[in-house]
Amino acid sequence: MSIQGVHLIAGEEIEGEGTLRAINPVSGLELEPTFAEATAENIDVAVLAALSVHESRSASDPEQRARLLEAAAERIEALGSEITARGMQETGLPQARFEGERGRTCHQLRLFASVVREGPFQKPVIETALPDRQPIPRPDLRLGMRAIGPVAVFGACNFPLAFGVAGGDTASAWAAGCPVVAKGHPAHPGVCELVGRALQDAVRDVGFPAGMFSLLQGESFDVGTQLVQHPGIRAVAFTGSRAGGIALWRLARDREVPVDVFAEMGSANPVFVLPEAMQTRRQEIAEGLAASVRLGVGQFCTCPGIVVIVSDENASAFRDELSQSLCSEPAGTMLHLGIQQGYRDAVEQLVTRGGVEVIERGPPGDGSCAAGASLLRVDFASFIADPAMQSEVFGPGALLVECNSPEEFLEVARVLEGQLTATVHASEEELSQMKPLLHLLEDRAGRLVFNSFPTGVEVGEAMQHGGPWPATTDSRWTSVGSAAMDRFLRPVCWQGFPDGALPDELRTGASGMRRIDGHWQESGNS
Amino acid sequence: MSIQGVHLIAGEEIEGEGTLRAINPVSGLELEPTFAEATAENIDVAVLAALSVHESRSASDPEQRARLLEAAAERIEALGSEITARGMQETGLPQARFEGERGRTCHQLRLFASVVREGPFQKPVIETALPDRQPIPRPDLRLGMRAIGPVAVFGACNFPLAFGVAGGDTASAWAAGCPVVAKGHPAHPGVCELVGRALQDAVRDVGFPAGMFSLLQGESFDVGTQLVQHPGIRAVAFTGSRAGGIALWRLARDREVPVDVFAEMGSANPVFVLPEAMQTRRQEIAEGLAASVRLGVGQFCTCPGIVVIVSDENASAFRDELSQSLCSEPAGTMLHLGIQQGYRDAVEQLVTRGGVEVIERGPPGDGSCAAGASLLRVDFASFIADPAMQSEVFGPGALLVECNSPEEFLEVARVLEGQLTATVHASEEELSQMKPLLHLLEDRAGRLVFNSFPTGVEVGEAMQHGGPWPATTDSRWTSVGSAAMDRFLRPVCWQGFPDGALPDELRTGASGMRRIDGHWQESGNS
Repeated sequence: MSIQGVHLIAGEEIEGEGTLRAINPVSGLELEPTFAEATAENIDVAVLAALSVHESRSASDPEQRARLLEAAAERIEALGSEITARGMQETGLPQARFEGERGRTCHQLRLFASVVREGPFQKPVIETALPDRQPIPRPDLRLGMRAIGPVAVFGACNFPLAFGVAGGDTASAWAAGCPVVAKGHPAHPGVCELVGRALQDAVRDVGFPAGMFSLLQGESFDVGTQLVQHPGIRAVAFTGSRAGGIALWRLARDREVPVDVFAEMGSANPVFVLPEAMQTRRQEIAEGLAASVRLGVGQFCTCPGIVVIVSDENASAFRDELSQSLCSEPAGTMLHLGIQQGYRDAVEQLVTRGGVEVIERGPPGDGSCAAGASLLRVDFASFIADPAMQSEVFGPGALLVECNSPEEFLEVARVLEGQLTATVHASEEELSQMKPLLHLLEDRAGRLVFNSFPTGVEVGEAMQHGGPWPATTDSRWTSVGSAAMDRFLRPVCWQGFPDGALPDELRTGASGMRRIDGHWQESGNS
Repeated sequence: MSIQGVHLIAGEEIEGEGTLRAINPVSGLELEPTFAEATAENIDVAVLAALSVHESRSASDPEQRARLLEAAAERIEALGSEITARGMQETGLPQARFEGERGRTCHQLRLFASVVREGPFQKPVIETALPDRQPIPRPDLRLGMRAIGPVAVFGACNFPLAFGVAGGDTASAWAAGCPVVAKGHPAHPGVCELVGRALQDAVRDVGFPAGMFSLLQGESFDVGTQLVQHPGIRAVAFTGSRAGGIALWRLARDREVPVDVFAEMGSANPVFVLPEAMQTRRQEIAEGLAASVRLGVGQFCTCPGIVVIVSDENASAFRDELSQSLCSEPAGTMLHLGIQQGYRDAVEQLVTRGGVEVIERGPPGDGSCAAGASLLRVDFASFIADPAMQSEVFGPGALLVECNSPEEFLEVARVLEGQLTATVHASEEELSQMKPLLHLLEDRAGRLVFNSFPTGVEVGEAMQHGGPWPATTDSRWTSVGSAAMDRFLRPVCWQGFPDGALPDELRTGASGMRRIDGHWQESGNS
């Protein structure tokens, strides 16, 4: 299979004009072919095909959707070495990482297949009729979750597979029964096309209408704008920069019928190290932190960019150990020039803020996208006074915030903006004394981590990958884990309908866990 | 207890200046006393007191919250005849309706008490650690729902109790553990103060900090604006007009940290009558519809304002019967002059649209707020061509849309904007043939009603009172029923924490239904 530079629209390869080429971040050289730029007509065809699938309820059979998700995983695995070779060229990611991410992507698809089969996402609630109730009878009421309709997916550049065209957003939208129109990422359009072809084949494999999936390529903001503004789009999922996410969110809010943009925009993921933990596990924490910051050259949305410590007798040694672990390694290659420049600029900006000092910088490396680590420090008062210091530094940099006492941690927590994660290193004794800190952090983050590090986002049922603004646009939803489906479902109540007209899971005697007349029941007998 | 015209801010009576007086809609006369207009300082004090309760987790004990909800119900019942007398003066509602609504309000409060006690809202999901998993271990992950923080509540004028200061929004916010700052409705400020005092007393009864509840009075848009814009407010609940709801939604979206406004803005609640149903139950449907339209002088958000029929051999008789049932009764008194004028203007506007004819008008009645019923008709093509005909006519009016065939129902459904409810009258045979109609209606409404009428919103677990824009600002949430709590909760994941630091429901062995390692368990043993 070769990469053609086309759009994949409802089962068809659509050629077009454009100037976009991928650039190898290691060599700086352009890659073939040239990719088409989606037109308003391309977008319209893709969205209307998706809408037709939705309105005809062609994707309403959960078993068939489970098979689609499994077929997608198989098709992606069958891409074999071609996707890895192209991925390494487009992203500079090492082979093992790219292959590992493919494994995670296929795991996600299969996880959603199992969730769709088992059905816990349906959350059926049934209240049977009480015709003799006084003063008024109760009708039969059945509440179930229904697919919201076509979803536009904007993948991330830092996880070209796991948060890409076949990533968690597409998997969860499909799992919910929603057709997907994906926008290819201009940094890795070849990977997008290969994955898109795999998804297109999977749709065909299991006999869904082709409108269940389309891939639109393009590098201009217009493509994304027109896609989000199309009235047939019912929700948008985005992973990427704050500027990009908020821009799409505004566009979607300004539609005649506004829709949600579930944007995951990353965060600084603060880590608080309490004195006893520092005393007993200083070196382990320094090394773990450095590894977490350096993972993927700092290009993880859960990369810990702010580390809060007490400036006590351990601080100096901690600084040295963290500096040694973080900055002695060679530079890494970032995903593309824009990200590398963004990292460099963010560090330079931070250094200009009052009270910020450079502790150490790692070797800058060669190559257009090379980036060395940075470790900066600032005192408590300067940090508290300057919200600009909280800006995410997307890359392998960390800012040490040095407090005079653990009590000042409360003030740091209080001024923090919304985060994906917040981490506490503490003894159990310290933890029990710092409940107010946990309360503040709970208000500011979607996931709290104890005595570990925030990178490594488990794809399961108990994950929350989404925090208060501006980490995500809405803290009530997650973009990782099975609950990601909930973003694309809405509750509908059926009142007084005969069994045959109800969704399967709401019918009398349907299987699965349901809430019936105020009680949980494993298999229904309403 | 007498009405003082004060604000109730965190346990204190706060006097102020203002010119607001309630007006008796029957007599048109002003009522004593004058009510204060909340200042920016009043708002700040109320919100900061609420925030303090939230940040200290003073409302985190579910049992105490259940007692608060029950105490509120008892205190409202103890208001006795005073609240009914004042309510009848301020709203013109008859005694039986007002007393019935009080019963519903107290039922709601007690329903939420039982939900809080039983705990299904907590939705705990636990994935225990797998330290030996390959290639990487799984940490212990526990997902629970946490209170979002201070909630601003804007009650409706049409249900001064059930959607008022102690209505479903306040009850569900309290149930979720969120302090409430309520904005009194300027049409019934005396009722608001009486109810507010009851809630203030309930807060004291069960030993909560006084910041758990405040009531701010005022008639200017500034009060609402400043309240919604206060950074301490984390969510807003509103029931009322589309203009009001969207204005608050925009303000909240434009904050530095945007928050959700859960606005329930009413809808036209279309009713589709299929030919066999018309043939077999024509008179029953006409009478039921008329009663549903006239309920509460048409001032229910689920009032059916659009009725879609086939212009067949039954149409003429149906028109006559509906007209007779709807328009032969005396005029009713609407809640206030603004609503009465709005109804009159909406009907006049509708009559000017192309193809719309008046079938019948009921007696206009005397009194400044009197309103007679209206029955209008329009042909299919004219309705389809003119979206302005869909505007909610808030009052006892209905528009018959006369189609040439049931197939045209699909086109009507397709052009409908978002609705709280959609109703179908059909034989079971017709229903099974009209799946595409149900699919379209499911996309456009939060509740589907079969062979009944949309008014009468059951307060239970299976209710969905919220539909696609512009019926509500977000179709994923309900403002009636136990799921209304979900609006004020957000998921937080705890990773690797010892039991003692976890919320109770996430601890090992906690009781209640939980999802543990992929299985439902009635009492935990993780």
